[in-house]
Amino acid sequence: MAQKIKWGVLGGGGDSLIGVLHRVAASMFDAYELLGAVFNPDIEKSMEYAKELGIKTDRIHPNFETMIMAELALPQQERIQVFSILTPNFLHFPMAKKLLESGFHVICEKPMTMSYAEALELQVIQKSTGAIFALTHTYTGYPMVRQMKSMIAQGELGDIQKIDAQYYQGWINPIIHDVNMRKTTWRLDPEKSGISCCMGDIGVHAYQMIEYVTGMEISSILADLNHLYNDNQMDIDGTVLLRFGAFSKGVLRVSQIATGEENNFSVAVYGTKCALKWEQENPNYLYLLEEGKPMQTLKPGHAYNSALSLDGTKLPPGHPEGIFDAMGNIYRGVAKAIRGLNYLEGEFPEMTDGVRGMNFIEKVIESHDKGNIWIKLINN
Amino acid sequence: MAQKIKWGVLGGGGDSLIGVLHRVAASMFDAYELLGAVFNPDIEKSMEYAKELGIKTDRIHPNFETMIMAELALPQQERIQVFSILTPNFLHFPMAKKLLESGFHVICEKPMTMSYAEALELQVIQKSTGAIFALTHTYTGYPMVRQMKSMIAQGELGDIQKIDAQYYQGWINPIIHDVNMRKTTWRLDPEKSGISCCMGDIGVHAYQMIEYVTGMEISSILADLNHLYNDNQMDIDGTVLLRFGAFSKGVLRVSQIATGEENNFSVAVYGTKCALKWEQENPNYLYLLEEGKPMQTLKPGHAYNSALSLDGTKLPPGHPEGIFDAMGNIYRGVAKAIRGLNYLEGEFPEMTDGVRGMNFIEKVIESHDKGNIWIKLINN
Amino acid sequence: MAQKIKWGVLGGGGDSLIGVLHRVAASMFDAYELLGAVFNPDIEKSMEYAKELGIKTDRIHPNFETMIMAELALPQQERIQVFSILTPNFLHFPMAKKLLESGFHVICEKPMTMSYAEALELQVIQKSTGAIFALTHTYTGYPMVRQMKSMIAQGELGDIQKIDAQYYQGWINPIIHDVNMRKTTWRLDPEKSGISCCMGDIGVHAYQMIEYVTGMEISSILADLNHLYNDNQMDIDGTVLLRFGAFSKGVLRVSQIATGEENNFSVAVYGTKCALKWEQENPNYLYLLEEGKPMQTLKPGHAYNSALSLDGTKLPPGHPEGIFDAMGNIYRGVAKAIRGLNYLEGEFPEMTDGVRGMNFIEKVIESHDKGNIWIKLINN
Amino acid sequence: MAQKIKWGVLGGGGDSLIGVLHRVAASMFDAYELLGAVFNPDIEKSMEYAKELGIKTDRIHPNFETMIMAELALPQQERIQVFSILTPNFLHFPMAKKLLESGFHVICEKPMTMSYAEALELQVIQKSTGAIFALTHTYTGYPMVRQMKSMIAQGELGDIQKIDAQYYQGWINPIIHDVNMRKTTWRLDPEKSGISCCMGDIGVHAYQMIEYVTGMEISSILADLNHLYNDNQMDIDGTVLLRFGAFSKGVLRVSQIATGEENNFSVAVYGTKCALKWEQENPNYLYLLEEGKPMQTLKPGHAYNSALSLDGTKLPPGHPEGIFDAMGNIYRGVAKAIRGLNYLEGEFPEMTDGVRGMNFIEKVIESHDKGNIWIKLINN
Repeated sequence: MAQKIKWGVLGGGGDSLIGVLHRVAASMFDAYELLGAVFNPDIEKSMEYAKELGIKTDRIHPNFETMIMAELALPQQERIQVFSILTPNFLHFPMAKKLLESGFHVICEKPMTMSYAEALELQVIQKSTGAIFALTHTYTGYPMVRQMKSMIAQGELGDIQKIDAQYYQGWINPIIHDVNMRKTTWRLDPEKSGISCCMGDIGVHAYQMIEYVTGMEISSILADLNHLYNDNQMDIDGTVLLRFGAFSKGVLRVSQIATGEENNFSVAVYGTKCALKWEQENPNYLYLLEEGKPMQTLKPGHAYNSALSLDGTKLPPGHPEGIFDAMGNIYRGVAKAIRGLNYLEGEFPEMTDGVRGMNFIEKVIESHDKGNIWIKLINN
Repeated sequence: MAQKIKWGVLGGGGDSLIGVLHRVAASMFDAYELLGAVFNPDIEKSMEYAKELGIKTDRIHPNFETMIMAELALPQQERIQVFSILTPNFLHFPMAKKLLESGFHVICEKPMTMSYAEALELQVIQKSTGAIFALTHTYTGYPMVRQMKSMIAQGELGDIQKIDAQYYQGWINPIIHDVNMRKTTWRLDPEKSGISCCMGDIGVHAYQMIEYVTGMEISSILADLNHLYNDNQMDIDGTVLLRFGAFSKGVLRVSQIATGEENNFSVAVYGTKCALKWEQENPNYLYLLEEGKPMQTLKPGHAYNSALSLDGTKLPPGHPEGIFDAMGNIYRGVAKAIRGLNYLEGEFPEMTDGVRGMNFIEKVIESHDKGNIWIKLINN
Repeated sequence: MAQKIKWGVLGGGGDSLIGVLHRVAASMFDAYELLGAVFNPDIEKSMEYAKELGIKTDRIHPNFETMIMAELALPQQERIQVFSILTPNFLHFPMAKKLLESGFHVICEKPMTMSYAEALELQVIQKSTGAIFALTHTYTGYPMVRQMKSMIAQGELGDIQKIDAQYYQGWINPIIHDVNMRKTTWRLDPEKSGISCCMGDIGVHAYQMIEYVTGMEISSILADLNHLYNDNQMDIDGTVLLRFGAFSKGVLRVSQIATGEENNFSVAVYGTKCALKWEQENPNYLYLLEEGKPMQTLKPGHAYNSALSLDGTKLPPGHPEGIFDAMGNIYRGVAKAIRGLNYLEGEFPEMTDGVRGMNFIEKVIESHDKGNIWIKLINN
Repeated sequence: MAQKIKWGVLGGGGDSLIGVLHRVAASMFDAYELLGAVFNPDIEKSMEYAKELGIKTDRIHPNFETMIMAELALPQQERIQVFSILTPNFLHFPMAKKLLESGFHVICEKPMTMSYAEALELQVIQKSTGAIFALTHTYTGYPMVRQMKSMIAQGELGDIQKIDAQYYQGWINPIIHDVNMRKTTWRLDPEKSGISCCMGDIGVHAYQMIEYVTGMEISSILADLNHLYNDNQMDIDGTVLLRFGAFSKGVLRVSQIATGEENNFSVAVYGTKCALKWEQENPNYLYLLEEGKPMQTLKPGHAYNSALSLDGTKLPPGHPEGIFDAMGNIYRGVAKAIRGLNYLEGEFPEMTDGVRGMNFIEKVIESHDKGNIWIKLINN
């Protein structure tokens, strides 16, 4: 009997893929009502898009600032409760900052900020306001990723001794080998995408996934990055050696020039007792390996899964879930948090994931630039 | 800039899984607005559920009849345009009939009716009104099923010489071996689920899939069904031999006692030139086989796919689509049809699929009961 | 410290693939010594081939009859103990008959004979001599097929309620659509290959596999065969409905026009407790399915496998076994039998498999020719 | 019409798995005749084993030295031509050295020697004698590994920009966590197994595979190794960063504590045009990835494969090949070389592979010990 959560969106208009993903996710459990937006810097286009979506245009604003002012002018109970930030990366920080300071909850696309310093600043603000902050590392919303987290937390793997994560894509391959394209693609332009291409875009997903499923913190890293042309030295490929505790090590491998790969993101965790492996392109399978026993293939929706995994599965086993379901699960967790309901650790990535992720990106670049040396991550 | 389609729902309240599936599907492309419903025979529960969903309660009605009357009393431009029928099977026909006669479009869960005679009656009505009628054989909404259909239609396989479809589940296994459970499960009670359990529930999906992807009509069938206890003779397993044209044959295999299977639905079509295979539990892969060449694995979202396949894919390759996306694609097609836009053959299953499906079910039972003999299907 | 078994080969010379398969298999466990052969009807070629193989030519004979006479003239302890029959199909029966009558053991390629009558005759002879007779249904030599047999025999699946076997190939596809090729291919000529092409060649493998793994006898069948041109009516595709006991049914599907398939042979057995599935092209995996539990993937060489499965596995888990290993396992079993050692039921297919197989082929043709009716198999 | 190659074996008696592998491999193409051996340091056992194998005992010797003397005493044309060294690792070098110096050809199990210095010494000797020397990196004998090598050599991938190899096993996991077992396992004892456990045993396989398939030389490495207990510091896990030319990088990952993994060895090579991936546990599949095209799955025995790949495939497509076939292919290549026939580069790993491999192992240990720094490999 809950009232719908009042929801606003920044960016995500027109042909934006991310816009669709968030709107469908928000609708999946009937928890959000889209009331206002700045879909586009061009108010005309924003209005048009609102009409296309079939939503009222009275809370469509020309820009972020006017939107916030207008919302703050409303009585609290009518005000938008949570904003999703789907704008270009450099806007994530200023918008999130202003929103948190103004008392709104925030769902923010990754990367959270452009620097670790900004991330720390944001964390301080959030702590002071107590607002909900969710970072959409979407892949952690998959039921079998959540199951992996639960099983490791329960100690079913024993102590973790080896971790291997891979995120291989090939989409930059045709771009990088074309001199004009590599000059004009925003991902390859540090002005627009920050100090890192590959690590910032997908490496940080792999990093967050590792810490998410293991519940462990990476203590130090050694990175080797790669580029293919001297005229563009943004990282488009790299391998990062990882150290956790005393004897626990791992490796994180990412590439955007793994020709022909689509979104080949996988993670394997090996413990003293057994191991778990998961692959994003076949997200409904979780493989359990144990010495001398048949491999087991766990799937969503079964009673043997944890509460965290089962939360959000909408149909009986055998009905494949996809990336929209993963994001839907994250929105479901955020809704619980906003409504003050109980929710489990892991229902959505939080501020800490963002702070740690930004630290990871900076340290990876530093390690590489200093000649592939070990660098400690800052563990808060 | 299209206005949202005014949408009503019959059934699908409370814990209904099918209700969630339809609502999410309807929301996926921002095309529908849920305005009214009879979620439940108990108006209290319907009202409560509406509140839970966060929709207005002014068009929540105690029963189907009052709902239709109330809608018809509204000016045409305010009236609900399309109803989704998610009620128990025996209500599909009377509701669809009344809706079509009253000028509403209809999205109907499978099975369309309880008999072939009813199906024919419905077809006559629909033809006379010209309303849109969609039957939710959800699996045909998957991008790679659509791609299969397109490639076969384009002649890429040559002439079809062999077809093999399988739909294996195991969920009835624990029920059938428990004398109390098999007496009380509605699926196994002909009063409630009609003349067939297995063929009516899943066999008809396989049948429709075959005709959908091949564009061919099955001309005659020979069926052998199975049950495991004399005290319950409803079919829970069966194999159907298929004949198409002169030299084209096939087999359709379904089971609900294939122990441990979840929703293992697959279809393989072999032509004179090459072959295509697809599996529901890994829906984002379409396998292309050709003598002496490497097998090719097609995936959604690539430019090599047909317009029919690409329609509805929302993210770049490598982002898995699931069953909700399949249903979303069907709703997208229906929305185009309702808005009078162009749409492709195959965007949603139509009345003919339902008529042919009901004929199939009845003929399968007849073939089995007469001692596993060949029976012609009626080809309209 | 066993002496090597004295071994002779009939056929299998020159480019014969089957010759290589048998020779490697015979060598795998150091149990056989190839002493004599009629590799070819042309003695020159036979001698040449013997030299190529590096074996002595003193027991290379111009024909079967002289070979047998010469061997019988030797003292028993010097005589060849077992012959492998690798000749064209129509020679299997007369050679096996003569060999058994003369006191030799026999390893015979499939099909055992050209007719059920011949098979029965052979069976009578073998019973009277007590010689070992092995029929090389090679696929039953795979460790995971043997594991399947053991688990079912142990009752791990409970009662069997559903069986599904498939053997799909595509190699006849290019032949059948070329009028000259389909006139000249021996497989498609009843004079040379007997009353059946598809069922006789591969259908009988699937049939034997079903009875091998389940330990059950098929009691009756209903078959529908297919051909694509009126000028050649040999079966190149077909489906056979199967009945075992009262409520146990199955289906056997074979095709040589499943375009692009290589050797896609699989078998699935569903019991009241759980199910097992196996595929020839990935022979080192056995899938165990159980309602509500994760699927388990069993692999060769593990202690959890049965003695029958482990027999013959030569390396630790993770070292793939292939078709040569399967045949090697069969030869290993035959060697034990010849040496009078204990061996397990199932180490090699025997006379009964051949007799039942020939009966199956004839009954399938009869069922089809009589209009797809049920025919009882003769259960000895 | 070739005479069989006279073959001797050192080690490989009794329960030796490697002995079986080599004997079956040698028999696969009828090219070798086993004439003499020192199966065991105990001559009694050697004799017994010879009888078990059914070979004559006149050339079974009490030790390596007497064996060589006896052979050298024979006229050249009667002498054993090639010896396979299957003894414990520390004997590989002295035996190979003596054999080469004495004019024998050598097939040597990996590791070739205990040190890089020994390897260099052996190389000098071989160059001076011109004898054939083969190192059994068995995995390179698989048809689809050879196909990978051929396609890359043909330039089908374009320039190589990224390489990723993995070799994960779990068998040391239960050993390492048991204080007694880890003290007594020879692999974990530097006295017996040399300076490295994991890198020496399996890392070198991965290293050789990378250079084999790419035809490129790794120029420098940075390694991070792992152990789990201070009382045993042998490497049981490690990651090695790789550099080839200017912009070509890679990573090599090996572990013996990847719990539950069997023999999970894979290699992926990404080029400017397309990519190839292969996995040892499913060796009959080679995956070809290209941006915007369906993935292709190549299989053995097809006409589209290279001569190098097709060499040795004995049956039509669809008949799985296993590890014994891979080793058989290597023996086939060695036989051609011994007979002075033409053979292709890549039919068997040679001295260079061994020299480079030993250098790799030493440099990996050095890199790790010096604090994970870049070390140049010596490129001969």
